[in-house]
Amino acid sequence: MHEISDSIISRIEDLAEERGLSLKAMLVGSAARNTWLAGDHDLDIFLGIPSDADLSSAMEIARLVAPDHEEKYAEHPYVHARVDGFEVDLVPCYLVPDASSLKSSVDRTPFHTEYVARRIVGLEDDVLLLKQFMKGIEVYGSELKVGGFSGYLAELLVLFFGSFQRVLQAASSWKPGELLDLINCKVNGSCDRQSQHLEGLGKEGHEEPLVVVDPVDPRRNVAAALTLDRMLQFSAASRCFLAEPSLDFFFPDPVAPLSDDELAAQINERKSLLILVDFQAPAVVEDVLFPQLRKAEESVKALLERYGFRMLRSDVVSYRDRAAILIEMEVWELSRVCRRCGPPVWEAAHQSRFLAAHPLPLSGPYIADGRSLVETARKFTRAEDLLAAEIGNISLGRHLSSAIRCGHNIYVGFGLASIKDEDFRIFLARYFQAKNRIC
Amino acid sequence: MHEISDSIISRIEDLAEERGLSLKAMLVGSAARNTWLAGDHDLDIFLGIPSDADLSSAMEIARLVAPDHEEKYAEHPYVHARVDGFEVDLVPCYLVPDASSLKSSVDRTPFHTEYVARRIVGLEDDVLLLKQFMKGIEVYGSELKVGGFSGYLAELLVLFFGSFQRVLQAASSWKPGELLDLINCKVNGSCDRQSQHLEGLGKEGHEEPLVVVDPVDPRRNVAAALTLDRMLQFSAASRCFLAEPSLDFFFPDPVAPLSDDELAAQINERKSLLILVDFQAPAVVEDVLFPQLRKAEESVKALLERYGFRMLRSDVVSYRDRAAILIEMEVWELSRVCRRCGPPVWEAAHQSRFLAAHPLPLSGPYIADGRSLVETARKFTRAEDLLAAEIGNISLGRHLSSAIRCGHNIYVGFGLASIKDEDFRIFLARYFQAKNRIC
Repeated sequence: MHEISDSIISRIEDLAEERGLSLKAMLVGSAARNTWLAGDHDLDIFLGIPSDADLSSAMEIARLVAPDHEEKYAEHPYVHARVDGFEVDLVPCYLVPDASSLKSSVDRTPFHTEYVARRIVGLEDDVLLLKQFMKGIEVYGSELKVGGFSGYLAELLVLFFGSFQRVLQAASSWKPGELLDLINCKVNGSCDRQSQHLEGLGKEGHEEPLVVVDPVDPRRNVAAALTLDRMLQFSAASRCFLAEPSLDFFFPDPVAPLSDDELAAQINERKSLLILVDFQAPAVVEDVLFPQLRKAEESVKALLERYGFRMLRSDVVSYRDRAAILIEMEVWELSRVCRRCGPPVWEAAHQSRFLAAHPLPLSGPYIADGRSLVETARKFTRAEDLLAAEIGNISLGRHLSSAIRCGHNIYVGFGLASIKDEDFRIFLARYFQAKNRIC
Repeated sequence: MHEISDSIISRIEDLAEERGLSLKAMLVGSAARNTWLAGDHDLDIFLGIPSDADLSSAMEIARLVAPDHEEKYAEHPYVHARVDGFEVDLVPCYLVPDASSLKSSVDRTPFHTEYVARRIVGLEDDVLLLKQFMKGIEVYGSELKVGGFSGYLAELLVLFFGSFQRVLQAASSWKPGELLDLINCKVNGSCDRQSQHLEGLGKEGHEEPLVVVDPVDPRRNVAAALTLDRMLQFSAASRCFLAEPSLDFFFPDPVAPLSDDELAAQINERKSLLILVDFQAPAVVEDVLFPQLRKAEESVKALLERYGFRMLRSDVVSYRDRAAILIEMEVWELSRVCRRCGPPVWEAAHQSRFLAAHPLPLSGPYIADGRSLVETARKFTRAEDLLAAEIGNISLGRHLSSAIRCGHNIYVGFGLASIKDEDFRIFLARYFQAKNRIC
């Protein structure tokens, strides 16, 4: 890997020199810090230019270095290529004097590499252990689909606490509102500062349950993308591992796809109603797709509950070119008759309007607890009928709304078995298991 | 009626004289005030003795006057007899100097008669209209089964407002917390005081939504037994009647018993689940039975909701020698799988206890919203199974508890049709109608 990155870097520097460009090529990311884990994002090579230069000159060089490439876009365009079996990103950035005067968020990365690379020496294995542990318990990755720990965050935790084991010991007693500030802390194993607890921080909407001050940019929380549940999943698993260590935490058995028979057995055992809304996934990256799927999941739940049904649990999935929302109902059938509560009887004008709005009730109007009531017929007595009628009318997020309106399938109960896709079946198996490591 | 009461009274006085007893016989109640309505409790003749005398001497005379009698008990024993087609109560009481120094609550009645009889002259028809109106709209009667207006209360309302029509006009704008105080008010039609409104009175637990100060005992609320809903039923009907007067208010069409076909049609239209718990009525008066039935109704509702079911409406009935609780379910079936919410993940000790209590969940344990959860199997997935299993174990009131434990039937859905009793079928018809006069 280092050979390849060295050769790419000298190729870039040659091309820059030919053009008389002031450009500094750098290997960044975990590969540069010797904390690269198989399966991590591969090689990140940054093309740094002065902050008053033009990014397009750096992009031109990136294109030449890897003729067989793809152009991608984050805040800025960059080049993605496959070189000798490695995935390589060639990312133009500005060389700013310090991480607090960024022109683009990628400009921060070289500072992270610089900060960690010097200090992590001797602790690389602890980082690798921690990353693989996080991967095994499914909290690794700061992308929105996961909401877990980034590689940089894992590195900072090791720097802060001094070893893999001490990170787990500290995490064992985490609760929402932890604050870790490395800036005044000696590193490389001799750090014995405790993490502080921000009183009340976790209570304010559960946002940012863990705050890790970025040592290269103290205004930034390195753990901003970490969700409360992923944080606590790590905390709980740490406790379990320390009580009873096992290789399984790092390399759990893979989950087998759910067979038709297993699906039938689950349905028979749970006696709930499963409903799946399945549609063509919009052509957007996962960091755009998943927040919209989660939003749609919330809207579907709100719709069902507004109409009197009760949801047990739900989840979202993307597989192949499809996306789907799985809903499991605790109450999926209601009486046709339903109560409509009117105003207090002594509010005569409201009363008359209420009665005029319900001219032919099934029962009533009658008085109960000081109010008038009528009993009328419900439009939807079954959850699946409601969903089929209203799924196109609820707030689902921009891309999902059009995808669902373009066409969707609703599968109910054992009907889900008609989707044979292996990834989908693994998703189902994991849904029914729903097992985190807690003890 | 007056001939009969006169003859009974002189018979009593003769017997007292023979025995040298100091005793005053009095016709009390509506018959004495010329406000007697067919169907009202018939003749009330009180046998007043000095407050230091012994009631048993008066009881002895009562027994002799009506040889073919029944002895009954309220606070004290009294004699009930049928004389020339009239129901007659012969009630011993103490002659106290005023209504605030009672020895027994019946001692108050002669004061009521005295207060009303003198003042009501000329307004008797207004009282009769009001009583029949209240009867027609089903708010007449202060017994606990009804929770409505007593005859005395109807009389005081006419005295206070001056006429039947003015009572209705005033009642049209009633809300909880009305106060009516006759003591400083001129009577016989010339009373133009408005009722006062007790701010906040109705909000404090909805107790005593109407306060009518008893003119013979100002500490007492004549409307103490009136429920909020019965008060508002009268208020709403008053508004409707004044807007569109009709004889129907006084003499509504009788409700026909529900036929089997009508029951089937209701079930088909409402698509709810009806459950009836039917048992031998305990041998107690309605004023004891109905509060217990209402309490049982509340307990059944609480039981069903504690287990996750949802009730639409319920009612209680007594017919022949039976009593029953009718329950109509909006949600009567639940998934077998259910969620059990554990403590916050960071409360390690609670966590372990929670997990130990659920060693073999259907799904989980998993973390959601900062807490651990497991999904386990529900014991009762159908409301009728829960009721069948638990009806004997809930708090139902003393007499009902033993009646239900001695034996009960649970009828579900069209199974209710196996009860052919006409009163029960009228109860069912009224249940489905559930119509008060509101406009």
